[in-house]
Amino acid sequence: MYIDDTITAIATAPGEAGIGIVRISGEKALDIADRIFQSNKGKKLSQMPVRRMTYGYIVNPDTGEKIDEVLIYYTKGPYTYTKEDVVEVNCHGGIIPVKKILELILRSGARAAEPGEFTKRAFLNGRIDLAQAEAVMDLISAKTDKGFDVALDQLDGALSKKVGGIRQKLLDMLAHIEVSIDFSEEDVDEVTLEYLVHKSIEVEKDIDNLLKTADAGKILREGLNTVIVGKPNVGKSSLLNALLRESRAIVTEIPGTTRDVIEEHLNIRGIPLKIIDTAGIRETEDIVEKIGVEKSKEFFNKADLIIFMLDISTELTKEDLQIMELLQKKKALILVNKIDLPQRVDLKEIKELIEDKKIIKISLVEEKGLEAVEEAIEELVYRGEIKAKDRLLVTNVRHKNSLERALKSIREGVEAINRKMPLDFVEVDVKNTWEALGEISGDTVAEDIIDHIFKNFCIGK
Amino acid sequence: MYIDDTITAIATAPGEAGIGIVRISGEKALDIADRIFQSNKGKKLSQMPVRRMTYGYIVNPDTGEKIDEVLIYYTKGPYTYTKEDVVEVNCHGGIIPVKKILELILRSGARAAEPGEFTKRAFLNGRIDLAQAEAVMDLISAKTDKGFDVALDQLDGALSKKVGGIRQKLLDMLAHIEVSIDFSEEDVDEVTLEYLVHKSIEVEKDIDNLLKTADAGKILREGLNTVIVGKPNVGKSSLLNALLRESRAIVTEIPGTTRDVIEEHLNIRGIPLKIIDTAGIRETEDIVEKIGVEKSKEFFNKADLIIFMLDISTELTKEDLQIMELLQKKKALILVNKIDLPQRVDLKEIKELIEDKKIIKISLVEEKGLEAVEEAIEELVYRGEIKAKDRLLVTNVRHKNSLERALKSIREGVEAINRKMPLDFVEVDVKNTWEALGEISGDTVAEDIIDHIFKNFCIGK
Repeated sequence: MYIDDTITAIATAPGEAGIGIVRISGEKALDIADRIFQSNKGKKLSQMPVRRMTYGYIVNPDTGEKIDEVLIYYTKGPYTYTKEDVVEVNCHGGIIPVKKILELILRSGARAAEPGEFTKRAFLNGRIDLAQAEAVMDLISAKTDKGFDVALDQLDGALSKKVGGIRQKLLDMLAHIEVSIDFSEEDVDEVTLEYLVHKSIEVEKDIDNLLKTADAGKILREGLNTVIVGKPNVGKSSLLNALLRESRAIVTEIPGTTRDVIEEHLNIRGIPLKIIDTAGIRETEDIVEKIGVEKSKEFFNKADLIIFMLDISTELTKEDLQIMELLQKKKALILVNKIDLPQRVDLKEIKELIEDKKIIKISLVEEKGLEAVEEAIEELVYRGEIKAKDRLLVTNVRHKNSLERALKSIREGVEAINRKMPLDFVEVDVKNTWEALGEISGDTVAEDIIDHIFKNFCIGK
Repeated sequence: MYIDDTITAIATAPGEAGIGIVRISGEKALDIADRIFQSNKGKKLSQMPVRRMTYGYIVNPDTGEKIDEVLIYYTKGPYTYTKEDVVEVNCHGGIIPVKKILELILRSGARAAEPGEFTKRAFLNGRIDLAQAEAVMDLISAKTDKGFDVALDQLDGALSKKVGGIRQKLLDMLAHIEVSIDFSEEDVDEVTLEYLVHKSIEVEKDIDNLLKTADAGKILREGLNTVIVGKPNVGKSSLLNALLRESRAIVTEIPGTTRDVIEEHLNIRGIPLKIIDTAGIRETEDIVEKIGVEKSKEFFNKADLIIFMLDISTELTKEDLQIMELLQKKKALILVNKIDLPQRVDLKEIKELIEDKKIIKISLVEEKGLEAVEEAIEELVYRGEIKAKDRLLVTNVRHKNSLERALKSIREGVEAINRKMPLDFVEVDVKNTWEALGEISGDTVAEDIIDHIFKNFCIGK
């Protein structure tokens, strides 16, 4: 594919800061830079060595007006991110300088880049595959170190290599099948069948192992939607504050679509938690009362994890029992708070009411039990099946869907072999598996899906 | 002054973006980079040519773990922003990569830079003077192109040169005075007196001319605090929306300290307007009613400009008259809206009530009169005394204060000469003038003032 226009975008986040960057990629990048840049010694950028940070001014060529003091460099394709010629202008941070420079570049013959278009070109020009391109976005939007590490390995090709390995096995199978179909008019020989069964099961296991990491991977990428519930004064706000203190992540409050919902972002042992502060846990302490049991159900349904808090020093209320009812089918932790006070609730009773949930005794006043809470959250995410320090996780729902389709196809293949179906049937299943996996690296993916993927990127990447 | 520690900070704004930059400045910058960076071909950064953007990985030297894929370069002092050795790491945007790299650099022997510390070093190491350093911050926080251009010229030394020129005149005067004092025991000769009077008046005029630009300059830098008032349904929200449409600036809503105050940032002909949306003009349309006349007074007092809206199609109310009372001593524009409807208010009556204010007839429904509003705002800011395209404006309150003190001193000098006071007295006044002006460039400024100035910078600059 040949791309002949030149694109530009601001590559740094908006806001007051020391440095802002405007990036240009394409055939005309260097021409444009030569027209708008003047070095201190009157040299053009193209007269400077490649990759050399050069000091000077961006100047409006029509008016001679200085736009900003900058550092600028260029790199020639294909040794760049996009494999095209790339120029990067480092100017003063803040909204105005990047905006002025961007406008000048646009007037000089470049077009505004669409979201993710630099990375899309890196993909279309063959520098990276689709899973690697997706990793770039994951790196940028990572919410914890752990999520970042997994994305970095994906960018490095860890997932692509793994999937590539499985696809190679499928290609080997296809080659065998082709030969068998071409050369034998009769029944397939035992050796080939044995080989195919053996390989299919191997592939099935490979895919299944990857899929097992998908739930944890999705959480690492998108965060664990968590709701803290319990009656007023049970200690919800204290728990949230205690977890926030433990959390080493940068905490940001993101106003939700309504004024009533605030998300708190926490980092518990590398797992990003999005605590949905329904109706302001920290302010009102009366969530179920305020939003009602019906509304609570809605939040419950959206949540990946519910932290239900009980007060051991007061009798169970009707509300407590109502919430426990709602918890039955959800992933939940039960925290029994205020164990520093005299006991009014029988833990056995609670255990009977909620059989399959983990119950942890805590005292937020005495700061007891928090570690156990964190451990329980970690355990719930990784389920003991994958190790917390594994870096090859499937984090992307798109990848998970492809893997699921691949798994289904290879299982159909295994079944076809077991049922002694003609090899043409098996061939279709193996091919389907191979194609489903190819969607991950982008080898066998439709153009509209590619467009859709890059639309979710930020501009300037 | 010798600065021996190495500082580091994130130099780009926080947020999801293509690129983030971490900057290191100081003696150990290159050592640190060598320890944590590995090029693709296994080279250290110090083995690369100076200013060469080099591709590779930031790696934790203790664990061998890859932190991020980066582009990195170094420059040797004194040919850098701080005049020290500088390393800049361009990594993936987003919060996690810059944070991880910053942490690694901090562990490797650098210290976290204070706000503005890079620029402070540029000042302390003599690369720029204080007015230029302040211009750097103004560039970053500029809200309109015009404000940016003025700051860029200030960074380029326009203000420093102008002030330097005045100070040179003062030095010439001081030299003359010294000679006269040393060599003549008797009365000062006429020629010297004439020279001193002539020069003093010249200096006075120079300073006065600079001061005349200060009001407009302050507005360009900090924005014109504007309040729109008027009774319910007079068209306040429509006006705000119409101005927002005209405004080419990037509009950002910045939540104020209370939920009731929202600031809208507009750009009217290069003038940044901060429209204080008291109690949500756009939502409630009933500001005076809601916050009461007493509270309105408070906002009036803080405002640089009040836009008072009247409805020509309805009778004047008690509220209208109350507001007109409050406007007497303020800079205000009177907009008479709804001129498309039948007239119920006599304009003459209004003119009598508010004699000295500009009255503009508009119709927001028919989009009439908006241009006149913008023109009136421009006129109010520049007052006809300075031209809108002048780029040398005094934008900084600190500079204004110094100029005011300088003006006072030189006037005292002129008076002393006129009163035939001994030349030693005149000398003191001339010296005071020279020193007051020196505060602008930082030649004669106290250390605590310098610290204070840089504290208001953003981190990473």
